[in-house]
Amino acid sequence: MEKTKSYKQFGGFTNYYSHQSKVTGTKMNFAAYLPPKAGPAPVLYWLSGLTCTEENFITKAYAQLFAARTGFIVVAPDTSPRGAGISGEDDSYDLGSGAGFYVDATRGPWAINYKMYSYVTEELRELVEKNLPIDSNRRAISGHSMGGHGALTLGLRNPGLYRSISAFAPICNPMRAPWGKKAFTAYLGANEQDWAKYDATELVKNVKSKTPILIDQGLDDEFLKDQLHTDTFEQACKAAGYPAIIRRREGYDHSYFFISTFLEEHFAFHAEQLSR
Amino acid sequence: MEKTKSYKQFGGFTNYYSHQSKVTGTKMNFAAYLPPKAGPAPVLYWLSGLTCTEENFITKAYAQLFAARTGFIVVAPDTSPRGAGISGEDDSYDLGSGAGFYVDATRGPWAINYKMYSYVTEELRELVEKNLPIDSNRRAISGHSMGGHGALTLGLRNPGLYRSISAFAPICNPMRAPWGKKAFTAYLGANEQDWAKYDATELVKNVKSKTPILIDQGLDDEFLKDQLHTDTFEQACKAAGYPAIIRRREGYDHSYFFISTFLEEHFAFHAEQLSR
Repeated sequence: MEKTKSYKQFGGFTNYYSHQSKVTGTKMNFAAYLPPKAGPAPVLYWLSGLTCTEENFITKAYAQLFAARTGFIVVAPDTSPRGAGISGEDDSYDLGSGAGFYVDATRGPWAINYKMYSYVTEELRELVEKNLPIDSNRRAISGHSMGGHGALTLGLRNPGLYRSISAFAPICNPMRAPWGKKAFTAYLGANEQDWAKYDATELVKNVKSKTPILIDQGLDDEFLKDQLHTDTFEQACKAAGYPAIIRRREGYDHSYFFISTFLEEHFAFHAEQLSR
Repeated sequence: MEKTKSYKQFGGFTNYYSHQSKVTGTKMNFAAYLPPKAGPAPVLYWLSGLTCTEENFITKAYAQLFAARTGFIVVAPDTSPRGAGISGEDDSYDLGSGAGFYVDATRGPWAINYKMYSYVTEELRELVEKNLPIDSNRRAISGHSMGGHGALTLGLRNPGLYRSISAFAPICNPMRAPWGKKAFTAYLGANEQDWAKYDATELVKNVKSKTPILIDQGLDDEFLKDQLHTDTFEQACKAAGYPAIIRRREGYDHSYFFISTFLEEHFAFHAEQLSR
């Protein structure tokens, strides 16, 4: 991996990296914050939402302050392959570039490059653990919107891998949401049975290991009603006896202004879970 | 003034406003953060650097967290008029749009609209003090690079108006810097005597009232040597007996990653000065 940019911040470093991915077959970019504290550090993977790159979280979320204070390394990948050469890949904000949905595509032209599930859980993880001072016993995962869906599904499917899960305004039930239906149809085909393993509400019904989950959801979020289905997820958790903490925040919307407000509490949550 | 956008953040609100300016003759934009604490609040004016709009500080500096915790209202204006219709106004990053330099232009086509000195010290101040819950006895001013120059010069020239001044990587001696020479020549004409009242190093030599000044300067700042002249300003302060605090920060550059790192300390500095 090649370090393309580096900025000293809060005594540590905000870095940008690039590497040739075997999983996606493309060059992939990610950002990482290295806190000032020396020695193996816990890692928080951050998965961003639709249209984002590896930059949004690093620029807008106030993450590096909270990471510096809690001693977390933050790893923020891009949200999809770029420049895969697929016809129309840049045409929609909710499919293709910037919209990888953290699945391994199996259909059409996407099946070659759009493997963000394996990229994040395997290749990127192995790469950063080899090159950055990460304590591989202390991994947490979080994300926003499409990336909140990613954090929930990657976390629920890999309970040993991630010991703590959180999300901001996640797409909780993508099988029932316009964004999810469009993406899953393109990436996974028309059979809804193939969608369920990438749907947090479906996964929580059968998962055995109960990795701690914290969710924050703004009540003025313009996507809450049609796209996010927080209530459905909460009901599924209750029915399954899954102790997810879901907090609703009056007056907050879907933006990074909302994320920044509660991100410090997510770092505290992950720090507490990983200290156990 | 019209509120164009509003986001709940840290219990308060990050708002964007637009108004028709009499001073510049154009529509002007600014951002403000209103902290959750009720009642008249101290105000920190933030002046941004070259190429910036009212958005940069609000997006990248972590300011709202620190403002919420210290109870400051933050007011961040745009860095110049926009759309004045002057030939070539959008052609250079360091002259015209995004480069008002916080002066009242007297020359050429700029003299009609480029009145950022009067805009910030008079019109904007009166506008926000009329419309936002600002305690007009507690004004502080800060800024970055060209905006650090603005904070120093507006602060030094108006000691009763601003009771506390700070800056990040300010252009301390614009008369001797390429950026300053180019802008002052265009806005003020070729006579260097007209430049001195917009030059912090010149102003500090003769100012009587010693408003407290705090400056942070990164030592890996790519503009330090040619454009900023921190050492010259420090020498002028020493010769004049002006007690400016100037801190040099190893490894930090000219970016918002640097600003975010030390901004909390600037809020603490202003809070302490305004409590006296």
